[in-house]
Amino acid sequence: MEAAASCVYVDGVGVGVEALCKAAGVSKRSMYQLFESKDELLAASLERRAPGFAGMFGLEADDGRSPRARILRVFELLEENSASPDYHGCPYLAVQVELKDVDHPAHRVAQKVKDELTAFFRGEAERGGARDPELLARQLTLVFDGASARGGARAEVLEGLVVPMAAVLLDAAGLRRLSAEAQPNAWETPSL
Amino acid sequence: MEAAASCVYVDGVGVGVEALCKAAGVSKRSMYQLFESKDELLAASLERRAPGFAGMFGLEADDGRSPRARILRVFELLEENSASPDYHGCPYLAVQVELKDVDHPAHRVAQKVKDELTAFFRGEAERGGARDPELLARQLTLVFDGASARGGARAEVLEGLVVPMAAVLLDAAGLRRLSAEAQPNAWETPSL
Repeated sequence: MEAAASCVYVDGVGVGVEALCKAAGVSKRSMYQLFESKDELLAASLERRAPGFAGMFGLEADDGRSPRARILRVFELLEENSASPDYHGCPYLAVQVELKDVDHPAHRVAQKVKDELTAFFRGEAERGGARDPELLARQLTLVFDGASARGGARAEVLEGLVVPMAAVLLDAAGLRRLSAEAQPNAWETPSL
Repeated sequence: MEAAASCVYVDGVGVGVEALCKAAGVSKRSMYQLFESKDELLAASLERRAPGFAGMFGLEADDGRSPRARILRVFELLEENSASPDYHGCPYLAVQVELKDVDHPAHRVAQKVKDELTAFFRGEAERGGARDPELLARQLTLVFDGASARGGARAEVLEGLVVPMAAVLLDAAGLRRLSAEAQPNAWETPSL
């Protein structure tokens, strides 16, 4: 499944079953014994990587930092990851854009993963005293997806672009900035 | 080419040549007489729709409104368009996400169209006295693409989400708000 996930990440959901099986080192027959269809294999491979996604963006570790710092850390990590030549954007967003079918099992997995990201933002926004945590969380997820779409497609360089943007949204939502914390640079925003 | 563009918009770039030809009502032979490859057909169909994209989002008409109003209008139109059941997001972003190949002719067309959107934002940001017009313009394009990715994939409902977000970025960048203009609602932002 790891091999299948990597294959889809590089080549998109249109990758053939033969290529998937070759990458995974299994016969088509074995694959169809394990999964009802390519759709199910795709969904399972995305589901398997979901904990890695949460880990990669620090959604799980509660390390005592402020809500503002935890939210901005997601975008710092996104900027850092996008600098790798292997970066092709968020696989969950890519699958949703490519499939164009909300009933596809892989679409549903992707939606769940992104709902968890939004829930993380909402929880931190609530802890941090944001005016409208739900709206802020949805807007932050939109920034995350916009950045990963443009960064992954090499339409944009994310470094220095995304963290200041998230900081502006946090400021406007009234998420308190602690003076002891590192300030996001590159944009002068009013402290609230 | 219109038929081809519609076909790709609904089914993605993976749509077969047979389906494209059937939609366009031409034989494969005729298609290959006109275009060297499916890639070239795809690029040509996207290029043909580029003026429609600029028209749809009011990038061309200089109607005397303020830079702030012209920028926000793009996002109002995006919110309105996304409410249609036929909306599948921005075709240029979708093609970039799906192709994963910056050298594909259709990728280059998409990049050009989005560069023109960014140039529109930058020009208005300059006219409006923004602190860093280039950074603001890139961030607005990122919002546009994030919104169209999530809205097109039905991962999000854009209404009431995107315009306030753009307004926050304009406020933070120091783009003047004219008191006579309609205020974007749903988010209390500091007037600058």
